[in-house]
Amino acid sequence: MIRTIKELRCWSRQQHHAQKRIGLVPTMGALHEGHLSLVKTANQYCEATLVSIFVNPAQFGVNEDFYQYPRPLENDLRLLQTVGSPEVFVPDVAEMYPAGFDALVHIGGVTQPFEGAFRPTHFDGVTTVVLKLFLASETDAAFFGQKDFQQVCVIRKMVTDLNIPVEIVVCPTVREPDGLAMSSRNRYLTESQRAQAVVLSQSLTLAEKMIIDEKIFNTETIRQKIRQKIRQKIRSKIETASDMKIDYIAIANPKTLDELTTIDSDAVILVAARIGTTRLIDNVLLSIADHR
Amino acid sequence: MIRTIKELRCWSRQQHHAQKRIGLVPTMGALHEGHLSLVKTANQYCEATLVSIFVNPAQFGVNEDFYQYPRPLENDLRLLQTVGSPEVFVPDVAEMYPAGFDALVHIGGVTQPFEGAFRPTHFDGVTTVVLKLFLASETDAAFFGQKDFQQVCVIRKMVTDLNIPVEIVVCPTVREPDGLAMSSRNRYLTESQRAQAVVLSQSLTLAEKMIIDEKIFNTETIRQKIRQKIRQKIRSKIETASDMKIDYIAIANPKTLDELTTIDSDAVILVAARIGTTRLIDNVLLSIADHR
Repeated sequence: MIRTIKELRCWSRQQHHAQKRIGLVPTMGALHEGHLSLVKTANQYCEATLVSIFVNPAQFGVNEDFYQYPRPLENDLRLLQTVGSPEVFVPDVAEMYPAGFDALVHIGGVTQPFEGAFRPTHFDGVTTVVLKLFLASETDAAFFGQKDFQQVCVIRKMVTDLNIPVEIVVCPTVREPDGLAMSSRNRYLTESQRAQAVVLSQSLTLAEKMIIDEKIFNTETIRQKIRQKIRQKIRSKIETASDMKIDYIAIANPKTLDELTTIDSDAVILVAARIGTTRLIDNVLLSIADHR
Repeated sequence: MIRTIKELRCWSRQQHHAQKRIGLVPTMGALHEGHLSLVKTANQYCEATLVSIFVNPAQFGVNEDFYQYPRPLENDLRLLQTVGSPEVFVPDVAEMYPAGFDALVHIGGVTQPFEGAFRPTHFDGVTTVVLKLFLASETDAAFFGQKDFQQVCVIRKMVTDLNIPVEIVVCPTVREPDGLAMSSRNRYLTESQRAQAVVLSQSLTLAEKMIIDEKIFNTETIRQKIRQKIRQKIRSKIETASDMKIDYIAIANPKTLDELTTIDSDAVILVAARIGTTRLIDNVLLSIADHR
């Protein structure tokens, strides 16, 4: 287990010296099957897989769950042994943000709507720490889950705008048998909340089915009204769970995250809702080519 | 001559593949002996020297000289032939900042005083473009002149805070025979202004001499008064040039740029002044170890 950036750089240089490509899976720990699928994909792409485990204070808002966030390190390390025992980087906060640290990587545009509107400092914290992890590890590729769809857009934009020599690989959302997207925050849910949380993924499945069945991928007939109809479908489903509070339901361009008024190109449907003090997000990507 | 980031990355990968270390000299062109000394140093340190020539709009304020800034590319290329014909990267603005570009690298602390106070957006523009150049070129080392002392502090801080795997090498200020620090902006000066501009470096030499002669490197006796005396010495000298308007005179810690109230450690004296519409800066670094 690597604890310092100095050791990490030493490890990375060794890998590159041995002509091994590095694949980084950045995580905040509390690993689940979603993370493990990223590690398995990294193992296929690269000769040396690195998993970082760092609960990054900079991406939590002042009233968010930084102190409550689960940190089951021993169990995480055990889980990683089941997927090829990748190298693990576990810095403490002072290693990533030493006294006097004063840097910020800000990406505009795609950071502003949706999660950015509800968590105004979140993506600055994400981009700053992800750039640090990329550069400290000198990684060749990095693996992210589609579940954090907007995060992926933001990181792709950062990579493009700052000319970062890292390949971004996005892996499908891993779900529980009933459809709930895996998330470290699911363990916050009570039994009743867990049962209700399934409406999030169910609402997306319904919306997707509606778009396909009603052939909504048809430029001529797609108007504001239909977009409202899709949103209403999602809203009605989510509201069947009495404790669910919707933050947003959006139908957007998957690259720019601009909200779509007509669905004549690929689209992503994004939802966020709170249940109790837990905030959950999910999304579904619709490829127009598959349905036209 | 390389024009695009794609070609640049191709070149860099070739160098690294051939086990050559890359040394980057980032410039805005209008090259002079100061730049050429950076190239010569890079040639000694690295097997592959790259000079970037890019007048970076992001580091100019709205009322500054971006449009007037000299762009004598052919002459620059001729000058570079005299120092081993390094590889040259000359992107246009749309290559560095394509449509939709929306990223910012902000460093706090050392960016705030002195140049930062007079040019509030300047260092954000510098750090953003320098990071892009570092990552686009995948350089191993980068070479900067001590003349832009605060810029060097800012870049070192960025490298530390963002864990950038690039070695920063600082080269001494190159001066005209009369002492004026070389600068692309010197070519803006009229004959009379050029004659007056020499007071800047002369004032620093006087201050340095005063500190040594009066053994001001002595913790016991250094007090606010002496700092004022040094500043007054510099001010008086600069004010012998009737057209010179002082922006600041500062005695600071060379690492943190905190202003010193006592000179009991290494110190840098920084001056900035305007003459006509031209802004000139200079500095001298005092190493206490040399004089105690």
